[in-house]
Amino acid sequence: MTEHIRTLEQAIADNSDRMETVLAACFPPEEDSVPLLLEAEQYSLLGGGKRIRPFLVNEFCRLYGGDIQASVPFAAALEMIHCYSLIHDDLPCMDDDDMRRGKPSNHKQYGYANALLAGDALLTKAFETAATNTKVSCELSLEAVRVLAHCAGEEGMIAGQVMDLMGETEPLELEELLVLHSKKTGALMECAALLGCLAAGYQPDTKEAQAAALYARKIGVAFQVIDDVLDVVGDQDVLGKNVGTDEEHAKTTFLTYFDVDGARAYAENLTAEAVSALSDVAGSERLTDLAVYLLNRTH
Amino acid sequence: MTEHIRTLEQAIADNSDRMETVLAACFPPEEDSVPLLLEAEQYSLLGGGKRIRPFLVNEFCRLYGGDIQASVPFAAALEMIHCYSLIHDDLPCMDDDDMRRGKPSNHKQYGYANALLAGDALLTKAFETAATNTKVSCELSLEAVRVLAHCAGEEGMIAGQVMDLMGETEPLELEELLVLHSKKTGALMECAALLGCLAAGYQPDTKEAQAAALYARKIGVAFQVIDDVLDVVGDQDVLGKNVGTDEEHAKTTFLTYFDVDGARAYAENLTAEAVSALSDVAGSERLTDLAVYLLNRTH
Repeated sequence: MTEHIRTLEQAIADNSDRMETVLAACFPPEEDSVPLLLEAEQYSLLGGGKRIRPFLVNEFCRLYGGDIQASVPFAAALEMIHCYSLIHDDLPCMDDDDMRRGKPSNHKQYGYANALLAGDALLTKAFETAATNTKVSCELSLEAVRVLAHCAGEEGMIAGQVMDLMGETEPLELEELLVLHSKKTGALMECAALLGCLAAGYQPDTKEAQAAALYARKIGVAFQVIDDVLDVVGDQDVLGKNVGTDEEHAKTTFLTYFDVDGARAYAENLTAEAVSALSDVAGSERLTDLAVYLLNRTH
Repeated sequence: MTEHIRTLEQAIADNSDRMETVLAACFPPEEDSVPLLLEAEQYSLLGGGKRIRPFLVNEFCRLYGGDIQASVPFAAALEMIHCYSLIHDDLPCMDDDDMRRGKPSNHKQYGYANALLAGDALLTKAFETAATNTKVSCELSLEAVRVLAHCAGEEGMIAGQVMDLMGETEPLELEELLVLHSKKTGALMECAALLGCLAAGYQPDTKEAQAAALYARKIGVAFQVIDDVLDVVGDQDVLGKNVGTDEEHAKTTFLTYFDVDGARAYAENLTAEAVSALSDVAGSERLTDLAVYLLNRTH
């Protein structure tokens, strides 16, 4: 392992610790709500993961000279949306996954209805969190709400999820698969980049934010290509979820169009494009390292 | 029917027409999304209902001297949240209702997964809509996002939904039933009142907004009492949904604690309290009429 990667892993771990504290502090006293609901939300939101999306938010804020205190509430909001999407994705009517991050998925633990509502609550809470960022101007906060909703909504992540469902029953062209994943996975990655830029004062139409968004879209799709590869060659214990589920479901994946080596080469190409998007930006080495790190991950 | 009620019904119908146009205009061109998703969203959002919550938003805005153009985006956002909650409530894992507003419920029409995602998309879109209100200040818009999320979230509507599920398997005290419905139904009514006040420039902590919120909470609970009554004595064809479902599910309702006449008397009392909350406000006659109208509704 290179020194670069060790430094990156430490930065990811530090960020994950920071986010854990912030996310845990986002819940109301139990008497204001229903303990079961708060527990179900926290079961999926807390205690895990590398928190790649929050890392991206905070890292782009830093890259463009912003204050990390300004990006953290946006990072928390985005992680809530990512988490809700996993809870709903795991439901029996969707991917029907029993395991997530090495433990029973939310509906296995709390039942179908409570998992549905815990997901709804986290999505709702995300917007409250983004709108309660006291470290940025009202204009930037409001734009963050719009960016979150746009990327997570019917033109972004949810469109990708619907396409994904369609791909379970009918074959998809490679071009459609790319659109699917640029929405299903890429949209929240792009959202992370845009939120980080907003926290640093750069609106989505600035060249700084555009470069960030391009980087994030590319690593988002590469991330999914590697996910498909790991579903074939990965180790269930290392992944913390079931493997081989794609083939079982006869679903179109990148492995429908590439063999494992070809898929890796494809992901490498996307990673190179991501790195290139930030090549003119001083201080972007850590994001370059991240792109390579995600390419080479085993879980 | 009194002249008052005829005027009110006309105002409700006019508002419903206006909202229909506004809501229909909230969808992106199909090439930016997946036609099936947009269709599923519009299936439930468009084409129906008295739109009581948007009516409240717009009416409170008018009452406090605001411009209707400022309240309409907030009203649209709230209606999207109401609509998503109905789609998710109807799902098999929740109330398992096949009918809604006289037609198949969303999941009967589009399947379980698509209905889930259409609900998620409408919830997400609600925040984008509220954050894109160009007729109010940035501060008011951001506060509207917070109010929407708070009322619809884990301390508001969703808490009520979780309590409702718990009430299906264990009996609830009358006091718990009141808390349940003040959250499940009351929270979005209160939200409507607060959004209308915001559109007129009154923050939630002003005495104007507090009076509005109290009125709305009271008619919200009265609304649910009458719902329970109609589930027992209502006409399925007039209601547009199945009746007798509460008794079938052995669920705690207001009819567990009151007979039909007692429940009506209870709702009358809540209505009187609602009316009293606005008694000092000039021009509130139409809201008084609305409270009585909702009390006497047959569907």
